[in-house]
Amino acid sequence: MNAPTQAVHVTPEIKPRPVPAALIDALKARFGAQFSQAQAVREQHGRDESAFTTVPPPAAVVFADSTADVQDAVKLCAQYKVPVIPYGVGSSLEGHLLAVQGGVSLDVSRMNKVLSVNAEDLTVTVQPGVTREQLNAEIKSTGLFFPIDPGANASLGGMCATRASGTNAVRYGTMRENVLALEVVTAAGEAVRTGTRAKKSSAGYDLTRLFVGSEGTLGVITEATLRIYPLPEAVAAAICSFGSIADAVNTVIQIIQLGVPIARVELLDGHTVRIVNQHSKLTLREGPMLLMEFHGSPAGVKEQTETVQAIAAEHGGAGFEWADTPEERSRLWAARHNAYFAGVQSRPGCRCITTDVCVPISRLADALLDSVQEADDSRIPYFLVGHVGDGNFHMGYLIDPDDDAERARAEQLNRQVVARALALGGTCSGEHGVGLHKMGFLLDEAGAGAVDLMRTIKRALDPLDIMNPGKVFS
Amino acid sequence: MNAPTQAVHVTPEIKPRPVPAALIDALKARFGAQFSQAQAVREQHGRDESAFTTVPPPAAVVFADSTADVQDAVKLCAQYKVPVIPYGVGSSLEGHLLAVQGGVSLDVSRMNKVLSVNAEDLTVTVQPGVTREQLNAEIKSTGLFFPIDPGANASLGGMCATRASGTNAVRYGTMRENVLALEVVTAAGEAVRTGTRAKKSSAGYDLTRLFVGSEGTLGVITEATLRIYPLPEAVAAAICSFGSIADAVNTVIQIIQLGVPIARVELLDGHTVRIVNQHSKLTLREGPMLLMEFHGSPAGVKEQTETVQAIAAEHGGAGFEWADTPEERSRLWAARHNAYFAGVQSRPGCRCITTDVCVPISRLADALLDSVQEADDSRIPYFLVGHVGDGNFHMGYLIDPDDDAERARAEQLNRQVVARALALGGTCSGEHGVGLHKMGFLLDEAGAGAVDLMRTIKRALDPLDIMNPGKVFS
Repeated sequence: MNAPTQAVHVTPEIKPRPVPAALIDALKARFGAQFSQAQAVREQHGRDESAFTTVPPPAAVVFADSTADVQDAVKLCAQYKVPVIPYGVGSSLEGHLLAVQGGVSLDVSRMNKVLSVNAEDLTVTVQPGVTREQLNAEIKSTGLFFPIDPGANASLGGMCATRASGTNAVRYGTMRENVLALEVVTAAGEAVRTGTRAKKSSAGYDLTRLFVGSEGTLGVITEATLRIYPLPEAVAAAICSFGSIADAVNTVIQIIQLGVPIARVELLDGHTVRIVNQHSKLTLREGPMLLMEFHGSPAGVKEQTETVQAIAAEHGGAGFEWADTPEERSRLWAARHNAYFAGVQSRPGCRCITTDVCVPISRLADALLDSVQEADDSRIPYFLVGHVGDGNFHMGYLIDPDDDAERARAEQLNRQVVARALALGGTCSGEHGVGLHKMGFLLDEAGAGAVDLMRTIKRALDPLDIMNPGKVFS
Repeated sequence: MNAPTQAVHVTPEIKPRPVPAALIDALKARFGAQFSQAQAVREQHGRDESAFTTVPPPAAVVFADSTADVQDAVKLCAQYKVPVIPYGVGSSLEGHLLAVQGGVSLDVSRMNKVLSVNAEDLTVTVQPGVTREQLNAEIKSTGLFFPIDPGANASLGGMCATRASGTNAVRYGTMRENVLALEVVTAAGEAVRTGTRAKKSSAGYDLTRLFVGSEGTLGVITEATLRIYPLPEAVAAAICSFGSIADAVNTVIQIIQLGVPIARVELLDGHTVRIVNQHSKLTLREGPMLLMEFHGSPAGVKEQTETVQAIAAEHGGAGFEWADTPEERSRLWAARHNAYFAGVQSRPGCRCITTDVCVPISRLADALLDSVQEADDSRIPYFLVGHVGDGNFHMGYLIDPDDDAERARAEQLNRQVVARALALGGTCSGEHGVGLHKMGFLLDEAGAGAVDLMRTIKRALDPLDIMNPGKVFS
């Protein structure tokens, strides 16, 4: 095991900037009922699912209905050099939404229209407040679906902003691969399109992918054109239990190295299965487990499942239990998606500190097994889930927010997980973003030179530093 | 048909900046035999495969052997505010390599080592001068391959810089999807890594994809970590001739819309088949033709070919001719890759003006058929090839470089092809980049706001404007 990284957890520097009464008056005049300073509304917009709880809420909330609303809100805030924090459904895990420098929360959840479905081209254009579940419900009749599925029913704007992924990424890629183009409102309030509906392009800088993952710090996403996929002709889902986490992980490594186009392969440890059983009223066997799904033609799915069953058997897998009907599959995946909430609810009153490392697949066992041992030794309750086909896993440390010593121990565990992943050629964040929580880790991972490039881009595109300031880098 | 775009072909503004004797002396002192001012060397580095022929060559050429060499060359040029033009193998089609503002050509072709092969993780790290064919030769024994294949045996650094793709992109993606991380030397001469070997990451801005496609204007690529793939268990290649281009194109549209994971599907018109036959001593039937390849398990390939044969038959396809052996397949694909050179050689002394539009697949027939009609009407010799599975095709107008009227007619055809593609939701460049030739088209496509964002990023990262200045945007 490598020495823990030197980076320290960044406690948010809370430096609220003044929000002049003149700005409040101007926002009220422009937005009327779409503007709120109610304490409950501000508080709802001043937190997320992260373990940060002590940052004061934003001074006000604007509910945008249109790109023009976003432009006007940004222009007014720019005029007074006041921060703008884009807000979707509030499911960030890394403190992205906290008003660490004060300012105005810009809620785009009412911009929730699916603007066009181009079934022939397998593309769809949506407003940023459309959630992933809403999109899939609206396009269901076309026989197409959007595969990217973080645990929460996140907004697609937020998923673009954090470069989200989820259980299907091992086959379908992440938001990086599945956003064709965006409309963004810049820090100057200008609406700009970053691409076309063409499947590929080499026309100029890749502005789309610069904004995907920029966490609201370069502009506000007001439209997204996404790739969608034909619903597979055949789907099979299976559960397989193992005698140890190592056996499960080594099964996954071999599946990926053989190039099996598995659609989903998720790891849960026995403790997490127990939590999920309790939360979702299931009776899954409470040991290390892989949840798998296979997509393709009937013959292709058969081929994949045969290969994977043989690999699992070599590693002592306890045989496949099949989820045969769509209803059974939905119930299983809903349980998996709720693992985070099941974890949090398993310790009433807790907050969750979530790791999010991702390593090259050959190093997954090295990264994961020591992290599990350390977590066991710490005596802090935790859960373990992983998009292991991508080399990505999450430990969720369930801490008492009032116990500073426990928080410090959990942060130390997180640092050790990250240090190990970086030493193995991996990243500190596979899919949750940097936000407030991983700024020190980003510096460790990318180095000062790369972070300086990011900062230089930020300063150039947002010279007043009003777009979600104080996130990603300090 | 829509009105031609208003953008005009940008004749390069030739504004050589002074190259002080002190810089030449300093480069000589630092680089010795790695430095040249010989006329022939300069001229070789002052041109590419584009139709631009009249730009004076760079003042000198530095042959870098290492990242440290690149850093020192950039730092010395920065000291004297002299342009640096990265050079791989010179296969650009858009004037990327021309010294329109004078300066020093920085040749990285001697940086041609495959630095590491991580077969277990399906990644490889290379220096920028490694060509795509060299890489595949060096990793052949591992059972893995790198699929991205522009027509030329391009350098991988150049392919990163132009966001290249080729015949396999329909299944494997482009350089955008297949570069995991880069080492780049910035305009300040600092070496920076843009990512890790993790398959996915949401740690900070996507610097990798900012540099992929930046055409040497933001820095010099000195290392690239790429995704590689298991050689498919089964491969089948077939040729199918059609009665019309429309029938061939409609076959492709249906293949893609059905989600068939075809590995390659290339269109040639009858005239181009004749040129290819002459150049590569083949006897292909001289009508509109699809060249196809299928990758997968034996059962998967069988399924794909049965589906595609049925679709082709519906559109009057003349039955499949199979290329059964690896040698036959290699010969066929070599002939396809040589189509550009076959075209150029079919009119001795000509230069080629190449279009590169890419449209959503449903609009491919609309984009392509009118473009063919206009080219036929123009009486200018041309060839037509297309990565039609991606909606991308190339018309190569073969012009007499001394005939200004013919050049103007070809440029007008190009403008019409681009205007039509943009009106159909497409892009002016699918894979060749912007360079000098498509700066006006980029403005048409992206709009002034988006190009301003690009320019702002360029100014921030290269404040002295020394990295390949005068390309992408003016």
